Parts: sequence; C-alpha cells; structure tokens
Amino acid sequence: MSFDRLIEAIKRTNNPTVAGLDPKLDFIPSAIKSAAFAKYGRTLEGAAEALYEFNKGLIDALCDIVPAVKPQAAYYEMYGWQGVRALRRTIVYAKSKGMFVITDAKRNDIGTTMEAYAKAHLGVTEVEGESLEPFGGDALTVNAYLGTDGVKPVLSVCREYDKGLFVLVKTSNPSSGELQDRRLEDGMTIYRTMGDMCEKWGEELPGKYGYSGVGAVVGATYPEQLGELRKALPHTFFLVPGYGAQGGGAGDVAPAFDKNGLGAIVNSSRGIMCAWKKEEGACEDDYAMAARREAERMAEALRSVM
Amino acid sequence: MSFDRLIEAIKRTNNPTVAGLDPKLDFIPSAIKSAAFAKYGRTLEGAAEALYEFNKGLIDALCDIVPAVKPQAAYYEMYGWQGVRALRRTIVYAKSKGMFVITDAKRNDIGTTMEAYAKAHLGVTEVEGESLEPFGGDALTVNAYLGTDGVKPVLSVCREYDKGLFVLVKTSNPSSGELQDRRLEDGMTIYRTMGDMCEKWGEELPGKYGYSGVGAVVGATYPEQLGELRKALPHTFFLVPGYGAQGGGAGDVAPAFDKNGLGAIVNSSRGIMCAWKKEEGACEDDYAMAARREAERMAEALRSVM
Repeated sequence: MSFDRLIEAIKRTNNPTVAGLDPKLDFIPSAIKSAAFAKYGRTLEGAAEALYEFNKGLIDALCDIVPAVKPQAAYYEMYGWQGVRALRRTIVYAKSKGMFVITDAKRNDIGTTMEAYAKAHLGVTEVEGESLEPFGGDALTVNAYLGTDGVKPVLSVCREYDKGLFVLVKTSNPSSGELQDRRLEDGMTIYRTMGDMCEKWGEELPGKYGYSGVGAVVGATYPEQLGELRKALPHTFFLVPGYGAQGGGAGDVAPAFDKNGLGAIVNSSRGIMCAWKKEEGACEDDYAMAARREAERMAEALRSVM
Repeated sequence: MSFDRLIEAIKRTNNPTVAGLDPKLDFIPSAIKSAAFAKYGRTLEGAAEALYEFNKGLIDALCDIVPAVKPQAAYYEMYGWQGVRALRRTIVYAKSKGMFVITDAKRNDIGTTMEAYAKAHLGVTEVEGESLEPFGGDALTVNAYLGTDGVKPVLSVCREYDKGLFVLVKTSNPSSGELQDRRLEDGMTIYRTMGDMCEKWGEELPGKYGYSGVGAVVGATYPEQLGELRKALPHTFFLVPGYGAQGGGAGDVAPAFDKNGLGAIVNSSRGIMCAWKKEEGACEDDYAMAARREAERMAEALRSVM
C-alpha cells in the first residue's frame, strides 16, 4: 500500500534506476526478429513475439543490478492485442525475476471505469467467482486531470494489493509548461497544485520510509522544478523520466533525492535498450550485455550525486 | 481528417447519439455468459467471449438507428489481453455494420510514444514492410495535460487516415472542477483554456461542416459550461457523456448543439446496455431490442431539444 517494496529493491541493488521497456522493432537485433517472423510471419503476432524475446534478454541481463522495469503500454498496443499479450508476458517474466514493474500507461477515467483500469493493471478481476490477474503490474502511472474521482478507485486497489501509483505532475517534454506551468489565481502553478493533491491522496497509503503509495512523475529535464517539488512534497516518491536521450543528466536529477539518497527512481529507456547501437565495439548479439554495461554506468553516475 | 464522416452519419440517422459499449459481466444476459463459459471455462477468455457476443447483439440491434458506438477501453483491459482482443473484434464488427467507432481510451503521452498510441488506435503499424491495423477506431479520446507534444502526433495520424480525436475539456464527474474549474492568473478557467487549445489544434484538421477533427469532451452534467463552450468554440465538435445514469437529461444537453442542430454527439452507456434490466416487462433474452427501444426514446428526446 506504499512504495516500501520499491524502496527496498532500490536499497538492495543500491541503484535508483528503472529500465524503460519501450521496444520499437528498430531497437531489436535482427536475429531476434528473424526468428520471430520465421515462426509467425510478418504479422502483429510475429512483432509481438520479437518484443517479448527482446525484453526477456534485457530482463535476464539487468535483474540483479536494476530494481525495476517500466514497460510503456503504447509500444505494445501499437501491435494490437497481440502486442498487449506481449506486455502481459513481459510483466510476468520481470516479476518472476524479482523486478518491480511500473506499468506506464497514464490511465485516467472516473468511478467504476477507473476502478476497471485499476483492477486491470494492479488488481484482479472476478469472473464467476474466480479471481484472475489481467496484467499484474506493481505500480501504474495515472493522469489526474479528472480530479479525485479519477484517483480514489486506484487508491482502494493499491491498499488491497500493496501496489502504488504515479500521478503526472510535471512532465519532461518541451510543451509540458503550456498547461502545467500556468499559474492559478492563488499564484500557484498547476504542477504544484497537482503535487499538493498527491500529498493529500497519499495520506491514505502511508509507508514506513516516509513515502506514500502515491508518487509523482517529474521530468529530469526540469531540475529547478524537481528541487522545488522535492522540498514541497516530502511524502511523495518521484518517477523521473527524461534522463539520457531526452537530455537530462545525473546532475539534473540530483535535486530529486532526499538527504538519505531516497525519494526518486530515474528512468532510462532508449539509453539502456539501444546501448548496443551506441557503444563502441558492441554488436547486436551483445545487446543484453551492452544494456547491462550502460545500466552500470548510469547507476555509477546516479550514486555520485545521491 | 475531420468529423465530416461522423456528422454525415448523424444526419443520415437523424440521431446525435453514441452508444457506449462498457460491457461489465453484470450487464450481460446469463444465456450469453453460460455459452461463453461452457466453451472457454471461467477464464478471461470466457469473459471476453461473452463481452463480444453481448456487443454484437447490441450492434445488430442499433446499427440502423444509432450512428456511432463508443467502447470504453477500461472494460476490456480488465479482462487482460483477451479482453483487448474482444475490443478489437468489437471495433471490426461495428465498422462492418457501418457504425462510426469512438475508442474511449483517454490516451496521453508525448512524441514517439503518443505516435505509437495514435497508430495503435487510429492508424496502422509497419511490420517488415506490411501495414497492419492494430485496432482501427475512427476517433480516440485524448487527455492533453501534457500539452501540444501530446496532441501533435495524433493530428498527423488523423490527417493521414481521416480520423478524429476528442480532448478532455470539462468532464462529467463531480470532482472535475477540482482542477478544471480553477482560474488562471488571466481569469480564464482551465477547462476554457483547454477548449481554446482544441480550437487552435483543430486549425490543422478543418472540416466542410465547420467542425474540425479535434473535438472536446464536455459533460452533460454541466449544462452551463456546455453552453459557454459551445459559444466559445465554434469549430470544436463535442462528445457529451453523463446523459442518463450520471444524471444529465435532454434539457441539460440542449446547449451543446448549434443553431443547425449539429455540433455534438451524446453518449449513453448503461441506459442503453442495461435497458433490459430497467424496462417494464423486458427480459434478458430481449436485451438487444430493449436497447433499441431505449435508443429510440433517447433519439426522440434529443430531437425535441436540438
């Protein structure tokens, strides 16, 4: 009912990194793709098989040094229900290897509809008396533009199954300020207002390390706001995207951590997934080990600023 | 690249109604469920099969008098990838019957990730030179808290495949005002600011009836705001939830229409899906015809205020 499990995984690995699993076909070594297409044809099923095999290799290479993975739902939905099945298989595999899974789906709706999303991604669904797990992630990203009605149903599921959620507060993209940086009549920015709502919602899911089960997404590309929010939201754990490919460096994410080096987990997707394309001397057969080496470099860089 | 196709479907049926397909198992007649569970067991697959058969009956009963359906993604994801496959099958079936399909998924992200969602739900995915359709809806609901970076990629896909999007502006739920009604320093509410952004984004997707391909979600439960926004956003087509079960009546949605009786489509989900539970004398074998009778009553009520 909090982020205690995630914090313990970060402590165990001494690494506040989450590896984003956003597997575009371009990122996948050709041997994996050839095998998948030979088996299933040039179909959505073939693509989905390649995605899963690619993820499996990454998870095997990372699971003892990286505490969490963050599959991005869009890259699975893009391959239809077959891709969504690969998302489910990826989550099951990552959990079997002891990783914490953050499903990055930015879901949002109200009432019983939001409850359906919460059951889908964090809880179980009842079918004629059977309790079945649809996806089984440990945490879900959520967009709270709809207000408390869109968050409450997730809090209930989190309490019941010891899961967490991350609410979009200040996103990493260039246009995030169009709405999020606007000031309200009381002088407060929208992102700060949303952050304050996270603190309030989090009171329902307290954790033993001081952080609740309601986290916030705050981009590495806005270090000033990261620092402001870290100070203002002492019980809100941060998921920090935008490191690496989007331009954020270790210095930029330093303000996300508290004085104990806790309080945030930093995401890298392309940096880790595509390390084999960038590392000198690496080849595609070596993609998983190249990802591991990049994850080690990132962990080192983060430890130096925590 | 606009809502021309939707507007023409509304004119043809003389009915600005969209039937929400949010099929909870509780709403489904027991004969359909028994057959599905006999075939697939008490599994996610069995539940998904029941969902699809239920939807198929509704679509058959409604397709000549209701121009559009709106499947809500949450109620399919709740049954795992098997449920998501039922969503795909539902979309294909509704389109084969000539209906316009609004996929209500409230997706949101940035850059290539949002592009992946747009391809998933409105466009095609390339797999080794093959162009494959993952879901194939005609329009998608979108949450624009992330700003223009979260909308642009959808505009491109809409232009290419003649599709549309509906941005959440003023939602129908009780707590929608927590954020959306707050006033910015310039005195403008957030929902109105979001509405103005829809007008601006819509300039890229003009339509021959004056409405662009960028619509807005505005709840029937806030008739005053509906009227304000109809006046302020002359090129923005409205998707209006909250009719019926959530409390909005025909009088409440009247302000959503322009002087030609266009400009909006009103959603009813439970009202139509569960008509067999509410109508005097109706029984579950009769669920599809009860839905049709309710849709006729709703069309009549809407025509009286347009």
